Amino acid sequence: MKTDLPRLMQERNLDALVVFGPDGLGPANSPFAYFVGDAHVTMGTVIVKRDGTAYVVHGPMEREEAAKTGMNLISRAAYKFPEILKAKSGNKIAAEVELLKRVMSDIGVSGRVGFYGAEQANLAFNFLNTLIREEVYEVVAEGEDDTISAARVTKDAREAELIRQTCRLTEDVIGATRAFLQSHKVDGETLMKSDGAALTVGDVKRFIRREAATLGLTMHDCIFAIGRDAGIPHSSGTPSDPIMLGRTIVFDIFPSGPGGYHSDITRTWCLGYAPEHVQQAYDLVMQAHDMAEGMFNTADFTYVFNEAVCDLFETNGHRTVRQDFETHSGYMHGLGHGFGLSVHEPPSMSVKGWKPDEKFQPGTIVCNEPGLYDPDDPRGGWGVRIEDDYWFDENGKPHRLTEFDRSLVVQM
Amino acid sequence: MKTDLPRLMQERNLDALVVFGPDGLGPANSPFAYFVGDAHVTMGTVIVKRDGTAYVVHGPMEREEAAKTGMNLISRAAYKFPEILKAKSGNKIAAEVELLKRVMSDIGVSGRVGFYGAEQANLAFNFLNTLIREEVYEVVAEGEDDTISAARVTKDAREAELIRQTCRLTEDVIGATRAFLQSHKVDGETLMKSDGAALTVGDVKRFIRREAATLGLTMHDCIFAIGRDAGIPHSSGTPSDPIMLGRTIVFDIFPSGPGGYHSDITRTWCLGYAPEHVQQAYDLVMQAHDMAEGMFNTADFTYVFNEAVCDLFETNGHRTVRQDFETHSGYMHGLGHGFGLSVHEPPSMSVKGWKPDEKFQPGTIVCNEPGLYDPDDPRGGWGVRIEDDYWFDENGKPHRLTEFDRSLVVQM
Repeated sequence: MKTDLPRLMQERNLDALVVFGPDGLGPANSPFAYFVGDAHVTMGTVIVKRDGTAYVVHGPMEREEAAKTGMNLISRAAYKFPEILKAKSGNKIAAEVELLKRVMSDIGVSGRVGFYGAEQANLAFNFLNTLIREEVYEVVAEGEDDTISAARVTKDAREAELIRQTCRLTEDVIGATRAFLQSHKVDGETLMKSDGAALTVGDVKRFIRREAATLGLTMHDCIFAIGRDAGIPHSSGTPSDPIMLGRTIVFDIFPSGPGGYHSDITRTWCLGYAPEHVQQAYDLVMQAHDMAEGMFNTADFTYVFNEAVCDLFETNGHRTVRQDFETHSGYMHGLGHGFGLSVHEPPSMSVKGWKPDEKFQPGTIVCNEPGLYDPDDPRGGWGVRIEDDYWFDENGKPHRLTEFDRSLVVQM
Repeated sequence: MKTDLPRLMQERNLDALVVFGPDGLGPANSPFAYFVGDAHVTMGTVIVKRDGTAYVVHGPMEREEAAKTGMNLISRAAYKFPEILKAKSGNKIAAEVELLKRVMSDIGVSGRVGFYGAEQANLAFNFLNTLIREEVYEVVAEGEDDTISAARVTKDAREAELIRQTCRLTEDVIGATRAFLQSHKVDGETLMKSDGAALTVGDVKRFIRREAATLGLTMHDCIFAIGRDAGIPHSSGTPSDPIMLGRTIVFDIFPSGPGGYHSDITRTWCLGYAPEHVQQAYDLVMQAHDMAEGMFNTADFTYVFNEAVCDLFETNGHRTVRQDFETHSGYMHGLGHGFGLSVHEPPSMSVKGWKPDEKFQPGTIVCNEPGLYDPDDPRGGWGVRIEDDYWFDENGKPHRLTEFDRSLVVQM
C-alpha cells in the first residue's frame, strides 16, 4: 500500500520516483492514476521524494483539477515551457527533460531516481536516454516488480472499501441483466424482443453498458458470450448471436468504479434449463471454487491453490494447462489474479513455476475463477466459469466481497 | 493513413514496425488500437513488415478475437512461452525479448526495426536495452513524429466515416442532455428535481453517461462545468454544483464510438437567459469560430488561423496566451487539434513558433474551438467555448462534421 513507499524507496535506495502521465492514456495509466486518483489531470508528471512528499507537475489549465489530488502543485506555466522549447530548437523531448531537471532542482531531488508510468515506448526510451546523457541523476528503470507495483500489491482500507463499492455496483448490473433476460418472451428456444426479432448478445451488451453507466461504472467492454463463444475464455461474444435457452452464457464483467478501482466478477447462466453435461461441469467448477476458497491462506505459495484445482479437474477427466499449454478444452487459465486500478495485478494463482514466490498477504485483493470449457463439444460448445473477489484483512483472513447468486439455471 | 506506411517505412529505412500491446492499456494504447481495431485483444504485439504484411502475436485464449483483426496470427502458445521463461530463469523481460526474436526470425524480419505503442516506461526501457544488447537488429526508437503517428495524421475514407458516425451519436447525446435540462422545473433560479432537491452537475453527468453508453459510446469523463468552473477550460465540473439559470455551462464531450474513433464537441449554454457580458463574449467567440472556419485551407501554416483569432480577441480587449502563457482569463488554449483514436492528435493550431511546419492536408480531421474565459469576473465567473469538427476531403476542402445548434440561450 502507499504507506509502504518510503520503506520500499529506502530498501531500493531510491531518492525519488517520477511517474509519467502523458496525454491520452487516462485511467489506463494505472501508476499515474495511483497518485492522481479521480482528478481530471489529462497530462502531468508525479514526483515522490523519499520522505513521502509528492508533487504533481500540471498544465496551467488544469490547476484546479491538479489541486484535487492533494499533492503539491507545480505549474508548467511557472517554468515558461514555451521558452524552454524554443531554447531546445523545438525538440519536445529535450525540452521536457530540461523542464524536469529544473523542477527537480527546485524541489531538491538528486541521486537515484526511478521512472514509472505508461508512455509511448519510443518516447520513453528517448526521454530516459536523453536524461542519462545529462548525467544529473542516476536514472533507474526497474523491472517487473518495481517500487510502485510492489506498493500496489496490497491495498489499504480505503482502497479495499472502494473495491467493495465497485463489487456491489457490479452485482447490481449483473442482477439487472438477469432480470432483463427474464423479462423476455421465449419462442421455441429463442428469447424474443417486443418487435418480434430475436434478442441478441449485442442487445444485452447495450443493456449492460447502460446499466453500468447509470451506476457510474466505466467499462470498455465485458464478456457476454453464448454457446461456442462461452467455450473460449476471452471471447467477448458475437453481437449477432441470438440468446437461446439451454446454452451456457459466460458473463464476465470487470468495470471500474469509485476512485477508478475495478471489480472482476463472472457468472455462468443457462436460461430455462441446463444440459446434463453442462450441469456436471458447473458442479465440478463450483467444487473447485469452494475448495480453493476454503484453502486460501497467507502461508502457502499461491500456485498451491491452482495445483489443487488442476488435480481435481484432471482426476475428473479434464485436460489442464499444466499438462498442455496449448489446450483448447478443459482448464486453460490461472485460478485467479489480483486487481485494483488495473484488472490484472499481482498476485497470480498460476501453474507451478510461473510465479514461484508469491503468497497472499494482509491487504491482498484477488479473484477466484476456476473454469472448464469445450468449444468444440459435438453436443454444442460450452464454457463454465464462476469468479468471486476476496480481500485479506489485516490478520490475513480472506473475506469474500461478492455475494451474487451463483446458480447456473436462470428460471424463465 | 495506413496506406502511407510502406512509403514512410521506405523513406525512414525501416524494415519492420513492432507495436507493443501490453495488458491493461486497452484502447488508450492508440498505436496498438490502430492495428487491432475493435477486436478484444487484451495483450499482444503487432509486427508490420515493409511490404505491408501485418502480424499479431496473441495469447492462446484470444485466438478468435485476434482473428477479427484480419492480420496474420502468431500464437504465443506455439512458441511455448513457459519454456522460454524457464530458460531465462523467470526473467519476464528477457523471455519476451527471446520470444520476439524467434517470431521475427520465423517471419523473416531483420535489419532496422522501429518500436512503438504504450508500455510502462521502465519495462519499455529495459526491453529495448535488452534487445539492443542482443545485436540482432538495429533498434530504432523514433521521436514525436514517428512513423505510426505520421500515418495517423491523415484519415482514410473509412476512418472519416467512423468519426462522422461518432459525431452524429455525440450530437444525439448533446440533444438529449439539453432536453433533459429543459424538462426540469425552475424554482427561482435553480433547476429542481421531482424529489424537491436541486438538479446538480453530478445528476446531469450521470444522465450524459447513461445516454452515451446506450448509444454505444465509451466515455471516461466529460466536461460539464457551470459558472466559475466554466471559466477554467479543463475543469470537468463540480458534481455538487446546482444547475442554475443565467450561468454559463461549458459542455465539452469527446467520447469514442464505432471503431474506437472519437469526436470532440463543445457547446456553451445559458439556461433561460444570458447576461449581457456573456452574450457579448459568445458573439465574439462565434465570430472567431466562423472566421477560422472560413479561413481553413491546406496552403497556410496552421498557426495562421490561431494568430487571426488572437488578433480578433486582443483587438476586442481580451488577453491571449500569445501575450501571456500564464493568463487565467481571456483565451489561453489553442484554436484546435486533430483527433482520431486519441482525443488529441496532430495537427494543432497553436501559438506561432510552437509547431511551425504544420499544414492541413487531404484527410485531416481537426476541431475548431475558440473560447473566452474569466473565472474571477466579479459579476460571476464564466466561460464560453464552441467546438466543431472538420474533415478535409481528398481535394483539401474542409467539411464541417458537426451540425448541432450552437445557440447560447436554452429556452426553459
